[in-house]
Amino acid sequence: MSEEELDARHAEKMKKKKAARDKILATKTIEKGLLIVHTGKGKGKSTAAFGLVFRALGNGMKVGIVQFVKGKWETGERHALERFPGEVTITAMGDGFTWETQDRQRDIQAARAAWERAKAMIIDEEHDMVLLDEMNIVLRYDYLDIAEVVDFLKGRPDRKHVVVTGRNAKDELIELADLVTEMEMVKHPFRAGVKAQKGIEF
Amino acid sequence: MSEEELDARHAEKMKKKKAARDKILATKTIEKGLLIVHTGKGKGKSTAAFGLVFRALGNGMKVGIVQFVKGKWETGERHALERFPGEVTITAMGDGFTWETQDRQRDIQAARAAWERAKAMIIDEEHDMVLLDEMNIVLRYDYLDIAEVVDFLKGRPDRKHVVVTGRNAKDELIELADLVTEMEMVKHPFRAGVKAQKGIEF
Repeated sequence: MSEEELDARHAEKMKKKKAARDKILATKTIEKGLLIVHTGKGKGKSTAAFGLVFRALGNGMKVGIVQFVKGKWETGERHALERFPGEVTITAMGDGFTWETQDRQRDIQAARAAWERAKAMIIDEEHDMVLLDEMNIVLRYDYLDIAEVVDFLKGRPDRKHVVVTGRNAKDELIELADLVTEMEMVKHPFRAGVKAQKGIEF
Repeated sequence: MSEEELDARHAEKMKKKKAARDKILATKTIEKGLLIVHTGKGKGKSTAAFGLVFRALGNGMKVGIVQFVKGKWETGERHALERFPGEVTITAMGDGFTWETQDRQRDIQAARAAWERAKAMIIDEEHDMVLLDEMNIVLRYDYLDIAEVVDFLKGRPDRKHVVVTGRNAKDELIELADLVTEMEMVKHPFRAGVKAQKGIEF
C-alpha cells in the first residue's frame, strides 16, 4: 500500500473511532462523587491515588488524606503536598506497618481512630475528595467492620469523591465502587536485585 | 480463640513476615535508573506516572515530561505542576488525540519531534526522571521505530529514570523494562452513564 493509501485509510479509521467515541460520551451525563478503588498486587495503587490527589488539587479542589498504614513511601509525597498549604489535610494512623509493630490491639485502635477521622472528612463540606490510603489492608485484617464502612460510604454526601487503596480489596467494597482498577505486577526490579530507591519507591 | 490468643498468633505471624521482608531487602543493593512501564486497559496509567513525578519532585529531583498524545487530562496536572517552577519541564506534542486529527502524516511528524525532545531530556544532566506519557500509543501505530527507541533507552545515562505509559506496550519495551505494571479495568463508571468529571478524569 502506498503512503497516500495508508494515510487515507488511517483518516477513515480515526473518523469512525471519533464518531463512536463522541456517541458514547453523549450518553454520559451523570455527575456524582465517585468511589474509586485501586487494588491488586502490582505497584502504583497509592501512586495513582496520589496522582488523582494532585490532579484534584490542580483543579482547585480540596483533598483530605488518611493513611491507614504508615510506610516509607510518604517522604516524597509529603514534601510535594507541602506546596499546597491549606488545600490538603493529612492524617497518619499511629505506628508503621503492621509487620513492623506486631501489636494487634494497638493496630486495631489506630485503625479505628483513623476511620473516625476519615468519616469526619467524608462528611464535612470542606473536602471534595478523600483518599483512604491502604484502608484495604486494615479491612482485610478485620480491624474495621466492612459492613460499617460500606454503609457509611453509601450514605456519604453526593458529590464527595472517595479513593481507597490497598491489595485484597473486599468484595463488598468492589461491589459498591464506581471505578475499580487492579494493578497487576508484570515485572519488578526486586527480582533483579535492585533496591528501593529515593524518588521511585519512597 | 480468645482475643489474647489471636493477638499472640498475630504477633508471631507479623514477626515472621518482617524477618522474611528484611531478608529480601538485604539482598537488594543495586541503585540504578529504572525503566518503568504502565500499560493495560485500565485507568491509572498516566495518573500513577504523575504520582511518580510528584514523588520525585517532592524528593528534590528534576523531571522532564513529554506528552505524546495531548488529551484533556492535562488541566489538573498542569496546574499542580505550576507549583514546581523550574523543577519540571513539559513538552506537548502538537495537536490532540490521533482520532481527533485524522491526519497520519502530521501525527508522525509530531511523534518524531516529541521523541527528539525526549531524547534530549534523557541525555541531559538536568533531569533525574523523564516521563514519556502515552508513548506506547505512537509506538503501537509505528509512528516511531521500536528498535530505535529500545536502543536509545538501553544506552541512556545510568541513573536516569524513564517512565513510559500507554496501553498495548510493545514486547520489546516490556522486555527491557525494570518494572512493568498492567492496569486492569475491573469496573468503570462509564458503564453506569457517569460522565468524565473535572478533578477525576481531567
